[in-house]
Amino acid sequence: MIIVADNLRITLPAIGRAVEQLDPEPIRQMAGACIDAGAQAIDINSGPLSRHPEEKMTFLVRTVQEFVDVPIVLDTANPRAIAAGLAASRHKATINGVSLEPVRLKRVLPLARQYDCDIIGYLLGPDGQVPIDASGRMEAAVALFNEMQTAGISPERIIIDPVVAPLIWQDGNRQNMAVLEVIRTLPDLLGFPVRTIAGLSNLTTDAPDPNTRQRYQGAFLPMLAAAGISMILLDILDPTIMRVASLSQRITDGTVFTWQ
Amino acid sequence: MIIVADNLRITLPAIGRAVEQLDPEPIRQMAGACIDAGAQAIDINSGPLSRHPEEKMTFLVRTVQEFVDVPIVLDTANPRAIAAGLAASRHKATINGVSLEPVRLKRVLPLARQYDCDIIGYLLGPDGQVPIDASGRMEAAVALFNEMQTAGISPERIIIDPVVAPLIWQDGNRQNMAVLEVIRTLPDLLGFPVRTIAGLSNLTTDAPDPNTRQRYQGAFLPMLAAAGISMILLDILDPTIMRVASLSQRITDGTVFTWQ
Repeated sequence: MIIVADNLRITLPAIGRAVEQLDPEPIRQMAGACIDAGAQAIDINSGPLSRHPEEKMTFLVRTVQEFVDVPIVLDTANPRAIAAGLAASRHKATINGVSLEPVRLKRVLPLARQYDCDIIGYLLGPDGQVPIDASGRMEAAVALFNEMQTAGISPERIIIDPVVAPLIWQDGNRQNMAVLEVIRTLPDLLGFPVRTIAGLSNLTTDAPDPNTRQRYQGAFLPMLAAAGISMILLDILDPTIMRVASLSQRITDGTVFTWQ
Repeated sequence: MIIVADNLRITLPAIGRAVEQLDPEPIRQMAGACIDAGAQAIDINSGPLSRHPEEKMTFLVRTVQEFVDVPIVLDTANPRAIAAGLAASRHKATINGVSLEPVRLKRVLPLARQYDCDIIGYLLGPDGQVPIDASGRMEAAVALFNEMQTAGISPERIIIDPVVAPLIWQDGNRQNMAVLEVIRTLPDLLGFPVRTIAGLSNLTTDAPDPNTRQRYQGAFLPMLAAAGISMILLDILDPTIMRVASLSQRITDGTVFTWQ
């Protein structure tokens, strides 16, 4: 289970300002903190970047990579920003991501093919909506896997995100049981040991306080680990969550166990 | 997921002395504390009771039931103690348990049939050893399920314990992944929605300190819940573990979700 930091996000005021002013320091600080906390990859959540997407994404990628040397994930729906990020990245970056929405497939898949890079596919319907049950997610997975391969992307490059549901949705807990089932069964369903990723913070959207957020995430994370998730996107600066991530790895990864 | 307190155990000095002296007070106190902490059932772990098993188990069952009104689980390998406990119990008690060991099958199954009570079956080989992998556990489950039905026990009465492995065993983490797989797949394998139970404290046998114990149990418990475990035997007086149990229930049980 690879831990991806979700902390570098433009919605944080300090990061938003830094991107606007092309000021590298707050970005370096955040990237450094993520590495110190054990990040194995960093998600650069730039949002849509509606103004100057190329310049801003290039600045973000270069700033992070001048300072730390871990894989980066380009988390934006803007194909221009994705293209700029891929071009600026020293190593192959990961695209985050596509779904069955036709406009995204059409504009993002060629970039993944051109750069031969990893790409995350979300299990959403062509309308961008979350499927209502496990079988809807399975159908989306098969359709998306096929679309991506048809576009010339090799299955080794594909990472499926089954989309963790906010618990507070009317059927959020049931949806998340479907998420676990999808993670477990995708390799059989697709006939390929496809990698999977999940964004943990989605679970606790609109949680009333940080304790509640931490506790629910800390209980769901081991479930994801036991289901066989390949990568997890989480708040790496929360030591409680990171401790649970580490415990979950030690329980599930099959290497020689020692306490501590 | 039903929470069964594992706290009433004769290996605790205060409980051991109370049983020896037929002093009800420490037993009442422990049973009351378990109920206050949210126990939905209480495991009476009397050990083998090699001297005066009938008298001591009768005393234990009556003392608990004079004071609290939850289901009890008779946790002993001694058939004489089991018989006395079943006879003394106000409601149907649960037998904990049998395995494929011939002597246990022969002496315990007739009691389960006579009292038409729930009975826990451990997935161990006929030699009392833990199977080495998931398929060994599956074979034991099929064999045990058949033995129990042949002895006239209805499938609704059977609860399977796949035997949580101490992490510190050479292949403890791998074994516990097999435990989760067995819990998930038993209903399909047996063609019956058989109930399952797991003893959480086994996981941390020989843990170096209480924090380590608590943290590993707190990470494995959600995995058991997500696998669909029906009952869990745990230290109900540990508020951290109980909080994780409650969170896990809220995430997995499919009822309407609310925070807290």
